[in-house]
Amino acid sequence: MSGVAPSVRNRRPPGVRREEILRVATEMFGDSGYRGVSLADIAARVGISQPGLIHHFKNKEELLLAALERRDEDSRDHMDAMFQEMSVADALISLCRHNVEDPTAMRLYAVESAESIEPGHPAREFFLRRYARVRERVAERIRRDQELRRLPAALDPVVLAGEMIAVMDGLQVQWLLDPTMDLPGRMAAYLERLIIKEDR
Amino acid sequence: MSGVAPSVRNRRPPGVRREEILRVATEMFGDSGYRGVSLADIAARVGISQPGLIHHFKNKEELLLAALERRDEDSRDHMDAMFQEMSVADALISLCRHNVEDPTAMRLYAVESAESIEPGHPAREFFLRRYARVRERVAERIRRDQELRRLPAALDPVVLAGEMIAVMDGLQVQWLLDPTMDLPGRMAAYLERLIIKEDR
Repeated sequence: MSGVAPSVRNRRPPGVRREEILRVATEMFGDSGYRGVSLADIAARVGISQPGLIHHFKNKEELLLAALERRDEDSRDHMDAMFQEMSVADALISLCRHNVEDPTAMRLYAVESAESIEPGHPAREFFLRRYARVRERVAERIRRDQELRRLPAALDPVVLAGEMIAVMDGLQVQWLLDPTMDLPGRMAAYLERLIIKEDR
Repeated sequence: MSGVAPSVRNRRPPGVRREEILRVATEMFGDSGYRGVSLADIAARVGISQPGLIHHFKNKEELLLAALERRDEDSRDHMDAMFQEMSVADALISLCRHNVEDPTAMRLYAVESAESIEPGHPAREFFLRRYARVRERVAERIRRDQELRRLPAALDPVVLAGEMIAVMDGLQVQWLLDPTMDLPGRMAAYLERLIIKEDR
């Protein structure tokens, strides 16, 4: 880090530097958890001073939440696009394909959602809100698929949405431990059994 | 802690002290993750000196692994007993009922399995071995249920075992965030759809 002259590094525009900090924070929080990383560690890896980092994110909590928001926006945009044109099953399989291309973001999400179980964790509210929002979004699309007779009408959309998210979260942790696993294929095997066969 | 005279505390037999350290470590690792807790923190909470703690567990890695092993033995004993007499579905629902009675152990497992994704994490090997073992154990019982025509013969037992574990892990994280959720009921709703209805 110290091999790069500050004058060169400081030439980058603030937006680029901000993105770089978020990328490094995603990596380091995902590797070592929220408490395992300090702002000083992140600043050192980016190659800036700690005051330089605090200029962009006033504390570690703000930086964690910004990193989570960035990953969330990305997956939300992908979900919205997929949900417009696909069944909920095809959209979730497509999301798995999308996620395996960015294991760093997947790792951040897996580690922080588990850590946020702790009542005092800074990301707890984020994950509670996120679960509620994603579940409602998936449930809405399940209802549409039920109307289109793609999914059995007898299943409770909100309960089923929670289950689909659980399968995906659980399989993602398994995939992160052993990336030789076919994550989209496993998700498809689960969803396949739900789909009404006559309509295929 | 300092209010209790060392002479009183030291009277406890070594086995009891060891159990007390494991109980506190389970709680603190589950709350703050492996990197968020030091041996000094754990010793202070137990009310012993750090050398006193190192007498039982030579370092933090050994203590984490011992805490994980303890929780694992407990759930393995429960699984073995349930598998003897029940279908795989009933055994897993019973395990959920067992787990909700010990949220501290569940939290340790959820947080550490997510953190162990990191290649250098001390619990990585533990979780890789554990996944392989639990999956093989569940797969074995799925095969038996298939022979008894309780589960469809067309499903791959190893893939299905991985899926059942994923659902349980994913639902547990949701339950830890919001314990008003009916964890055994949600697990049952998932498993119910797999079971061959004619045989019930």
